[in-house]
Amino acid sequence: MDNILKYIGDNRDKFIDRLRENVEIASVSGWPTHRGECVRQMEVSMKMLQDFGFDVERVDIGDQQLADGNKIPLPPILLGHLGKDPKKKTLLIYGHLDVQPALVEDGWSTDPFKLIEKDDKLWGRGSTDDKGPVIGWINAIEAYQKTGADIPVNIKVCFEGMEESGSVKLEETVRERTDFFATNVDWVCISDNYFLGQTKPCLTYGLRGCAYFNIEVKGAHQDLHSGVFGGSVPEAMVELSHIFASLISSEGQIQIEGLSDQVLPVTDDEKKMYKNIDFELERYRGEVGCGRLLSDDKTDLLMRRWRYPSLSIHGIQGAFAEPGEKTVIPAKVIGKFSIRLVPAMTPDHVEKMVVDHVMKVHEKLNTKNQVKCFLGKGPSVPWVTNPKNENFQAAVNAIKKVHGVEPDLTREGCSIPVTLVFEEVTGKNVLLLPMGSCDDGAHSQNEKLNIVNYMEGTKVFAEYLNELGKL
Amino acid sequence: MDNILKYIGDNRDKFIDRLRENVEIASVSGWPTHRGECVRQMEVSMKMLQDFGFDVERVDIGDQQLADGNKIPLPPILLGHLGKDPKKKTLLIYGHLDVQPALVEDGWSTDPFKLIEKDDKLWGRGSTDDKGPVIGWINAIEAYQKTGADIPVNIKVCFEGMEESGSVKLEETVRERTDFFATNVDWVCISDNYFLGQTKPCLTYGLRGCAYFNIEVKGAHQDLHSGVFGGSVPEAMVELSHIFASLISSEGQIQIEGLSDQVLPVTDDEKKMYKNIDFELERYRGEVGCGRLLSDDKTDLLMRRWRYPSLSIHGIQGAFAEPGEKTVIPAKVIGKFSIRLVPAMTPDHVEKMVVDHVMKVHEKLNTKNQVKCFLGKGPSVPWVTNPKNENFQAAVNAIKKVHGVEPDLTREGCSIPVTLVFEEVTGKNVLLLPMGSCDDGAHSQNEKLNIVNYMEGTKVFAEYLNELGKL
Repeated sequence: MDNILKYIGDNRDKFIDRLRENVEIASVSGWPTHRGECVRQMEVSMKMLQDFGFDVERVDIGDQQLADGNKIPLPPILLGHLGKDPKKKTLLIYGHLDVQPALVEDGWSTDPFKLIEKDDKLWGRGSTDDKGPVIGWINAIEAYQKTGADIPVNIKVCFEGMEESGSVKLEETVRERTDFFATNVDWVCISDNYFLGQTKPCLTYGLRGCAYFNIEVKGAHQDLHSGVFGGSVPEAMVELSHIFASLISSEGQIQIEGLSDQVLPVTDDEKKMYKNIDFELERYRGEVGCGRLLSDDKTDLLMRRWRYPSLSIHGIQGAFAEPGEKTVIPAKVIGKFSIRLVPAMTPDHVEKMVVDHVMKVHEKLNTKNQVKCFLGKGPSVPWVTNPKNENFQAAVNAIKKVHGVEPDLTREGCSIPVTLVFEEVTGKNVLLLPMGSCDDGAHSQNEKLNIVNYMEGTKVFAEYLNELGKL
Repeated sequence: MDNILKYIGDNRDKFIDRLRENVEIASVSGWPTHRGECVRQMEVSMKMLQDFGFDVERVDIGDQQLADGNKIPLPPILLGHLGKDPKKKTLLIYGHLDVQPALVEDGWSTDPFKLIEKDDKLWGRGSTDDKGPVIGWINAIEAYQKTGADIPVNIKVCFEGMEESGSVKLEETVRERTDFFATNVDWVCISDNYFLGQTKPCLTYGLRGCAYFNIEVKGAHQDLHSGVFGGSVPEAMVELSHIFASLISSEGQIQIEGLSDQVLPVTDDEKKMYKNIDFELERYRGEVGCGRLLSDDKTDLLMRRWRYPSLSIHGIQGAFAEPGEKTVIPAKVIGKFSIRLVPAMTPDHVEKMVVDHVMKVHEKLNTKNQVKCFLGKGPSVPWVTNPKNENFQAAVNAIKKVHGVEPDLTREGCSIPVTLVFEEVTGKNVLLLPMGSCDDGAHSQNEKLNIVNYMEGTKVFAEYLNELGKL
């Protein structure tokens, strides 16, 4: 392994140039005008994989129909194999090569589609999300090959180009292509999330699900003049405000009866895992910019983010939302909020508790408005895995060797729906192995990847392959 | 007077044609593309006044700067005199000749800029607001002149062409031109509102004012991902919902301490005036389309609309307001609500009570969010006059003669700011004398004026002039 790690260290500039070439392709999947660049990015990646000996299948997933009726092609999904040695086990790696939109006018200090090396960081759109990690895997493989080392596992890759736009057709493809995903896969690794902090590596073993709710409140036939009608009729916005306030206290306590019935109790083992996690409350508060946090205890705060449900109010459709002053009484408003789900909450149970609560509050408010509460599309279920399994332990060992520290075992509060799909279809363990830091600004202006994360991350990938080979 | 009333009855078709010619001018002051039509409308009106012997001054009020920087002319204000007999008293009449926007695509059954006579109604934009009443005055004057009768008062008119766009420059003009408005005016009459119901005439002696409020709540530095941050930070939308809910109960009771301190108590005399008002609760509820009203008592409900303050929540700026599902936690939201003011509430007192209340609730919510509550631009003060004065009594007598009934004495819940300006500058009584019915749809699709309202209204104007002549 020493040769391999030395090769990686010696090829810093080459690896940065490889990332640079990919960042310069403006593969913004959310911009229909740039769909050609997304397709080109997948073609460049296909060529790169082939250059390293991969057997690559380009899966054509058809067209996307735009709101204006026009059709544009979807970028293909790449399914690649490197090695089919029946004596070796197989790792499936997922990554994506499309990026979020980015414009200098949004407040970037540099051209987002140039990779700028400055202050030991690599600035550019996609540097950390997710081109850096994808290229990191290629770099690790190159290190094995160029040093004449045998890669101790077979590798499969699944790279897509629509992740930032809802991973169109990915789930269908994974479910259809059982030949690729359900056979000859022993472990899955996704490197598409971030360290909890800026420097200490972590492995992620849980994600929350999400249930999105709409509360529709209808008062009058049509919007009313507040001068002429104000004071005489129950108003939809007043009722919605009362319903919103009934959902959650200002201190973040969800007030929906029965909602948390299914939440698994915290075990002692679990609590212990939080103890050593590198996380500073005051630093987090400062970064978020809020006046206080909802807990002053590290473990409690992290649990509120990861392993307890949370409720957020997102907005209202149908009310006045522009700058200025409008005096209308909106006739119909739709309030929107979501609940993050944790094991073992089910969307069905959550839906029943929420709807019961809202309708009970509505009855009590005695407005005789028409109120409907309903679950939005596609609730996602929570995911948690046992971080003591061999896939995680291989990564723990790899990180210990490269960084000299035991990684934090973390969960995330958000959803990465593809995680569950891979787990379900492969029937194997999925590891979330982040390369970037918490402050990389994945979807923000001035996205960056620290050079140290890129280089050490590549080494971790190489060590992880080696550790898997021992299993 | 019999000759005059007979002349009006005999000239139905001519008067409808006169209204038709004016409705066909698409004088939409809110459409910059149609500003030429607004100017033409004022020129046509000037010519019409001159044809009836008015001495007309065209007051040029300059240009309007559009958001794109372009300038377009403002339609002139017309100041006209008919008769300057020092032995006669003088009535000042206000009216406007611009209209609200209207498109067939909005749901009109007919071309809004053609006057369609159907089902005893005159359909078309401006038929009731406010071209019908303005032309009604002209018709009444014609009836005097063509029957050889002497008009027993001098008449001044003030016609504008920007009423539907905030009466740009009207207040300044009235305040500057004291030569016209502050001297030789004995009464003022505005015919720009509506019957309380469909058939019974009314006179309006009070209007509410309005104070618009913004509540700005700032949580984090920037919008947050609800998966990543949900559960750990106090959210601006949650706090705003609690503040909104604290302002008013679902049954319309304002919960702001001290807000109603200045509201004048109801007198017995006042209560009596409500007794005979022609108003059916159930019919009103059906027209509005709400499930219930905030009171089951006629007098109480009307008082809630006219002589008590009301509070309406209009919307939120900065939160998610589109169709679909967005899971962001908005960092900064601005809640908007307004309070209708009644005598003797002052904007200063109301502002203090509202801000105190909001800040007290904010403290209690303990979010450490940054909260600001502030009064919006241009609060308007309430207006009420004594309907027993001679100007109102002249109109009461006129209506009794034409309709055979005593008009209801009503107030309105909304503001007509120019009323106060005329009262203040002239120092005389202002009468609001409506021509149209409650269901005319002044700012809606399919605006109409009942032919009976147009014809009887013209007769009321003629009788009113006659009654004023006796004073």
